[in-house]
Amino acid sequence: MKSLKKAILEKGQIVGDDILKVDMFLNQMVDIDLLNDIGEEFKKRFKNENITKIFTIEASGIGVACITAQYFSVPVLFAKKSEAKNMGKDVYCSDVYSYTKDKNYKIRVPKEFLTKDDSVLIIDDFLANGKAVQGLMDIVNQAGAKVVGAGIVIEKGFQPGGDELRAKGLKVESLAIIDSISNGKIIFR
Amino acid sequence: MKSLKKAILEKGQIVGDDILKVDMFLNQMVDIDLLNDIGEEFKKRFKNENITKIFTIEASGIGVACITAQYFSVPVLFAKKSEAKNMGKDVYCSDVYSYTKDKNYKIRVPKEFLTKDDSVLIIDDFLANGKAVQGLMDIVNQAGAKVVGAGIVIEKGFQPGGDELRAKGLKVESLAIIDSISNGKIIFR
Repeated sequence: MKSLKKAILEKGQIVGDDILKVDMFLNQMVDIDLLNDIGEEFKKRFKNENITKIFTIEASGIGVACITAQYFSVPVLFAKKSEAKNMGKDVYCSDVYSYTKDKNYKIRVPKEFLTKDDSVLIIDDFLANGKAVQGLMDIVNQAGAKVVGAGIVIEKGFQPGGDELRAKGLKVESLAIIDSISNGKIIFR
Repeated sequence: MKSLKKAILEKGQIVGDDILKVDMFLNQMVDIDLLNDIGEEFKKRFKNENITKIFTIEASGIGVACITAQYFSVPVLFAKKSEAKNMGKDVYCSDVYSYTKDKNYKIRVPKEFLTKDDSVLIIDDFLANGKAVQGLMDIVNQAGAKVVGAGIVIEKGFQPGGDELRAKGLKVESLAIIDSISNGKIIFR
């Protein structure tokens, strides 16, 4: 996706050999025109699928998911990361390890929000080790629903998540796959 | 706003005398058509203001902010709640007390994302005690930028946040103000 790759090259910041910061247009400041391009592209790539819900994880996935959902005319559902006081006990739950924060956290969705009749498209901003997507898939499976695929904005191709998910048969569509950010240079697949 | 009040009455759940759960269409499952109505209404209410950024706080404000930003053709900026490994030190920071979680947390925005030339519209899903909006205003003030107002989806009129902010001269536009949820009945202002 040309506009996305342009934004990554112009505004992305490389930290060390494995961190790519895209806070400037995706992760904290959000370029809504670019998000619309992204949503439209996800629609193209999953246009033949019957999708009933877009599923993501708080926080930075929510913006991409909401804009994308407009192209599919379906609701967004996001998994919450922490247990709030007013969250009921009747929830699907999964454990996710975050490499960024170096700790495990739980993600939760009330059971009433996913049924066995749902066909779910997982959307997230980043795919690196794939732990978040695996946790979301786990929750969809617990509900007896179907995952039709995962739409990812940026995949770090030098980390194993994408390949592992594809090896399991998941349709993973990443709009930009980065094979290397070594030596301050971004190399796309 | 008729469609919003309808959703609150039909899908909101009252817990005790002061908690209104709107997870079903706003806070965890997100009705994107309703969010578009909300975004359009915010545009009407702030159409005479010069706005350069929509500013919100993770997580549940992000969806409303991103959909709303489409009507203003400006980027979204959201404050992050916790310190991630790859967040720089050069940030504006404010403390916010959460009544829901009964604890203080810090919100942060990298300094490069707000300048003194910005005119900021604060958007959030809920306004109760107003601590989140006050924290966001604090950050905008630290940047020397201007807050043109706050657009709130649901204001709990029986809690003091909205009145306190208006008394300080802030233009607060709440699309639904709830004066009471006692005895299982929702009363709008």
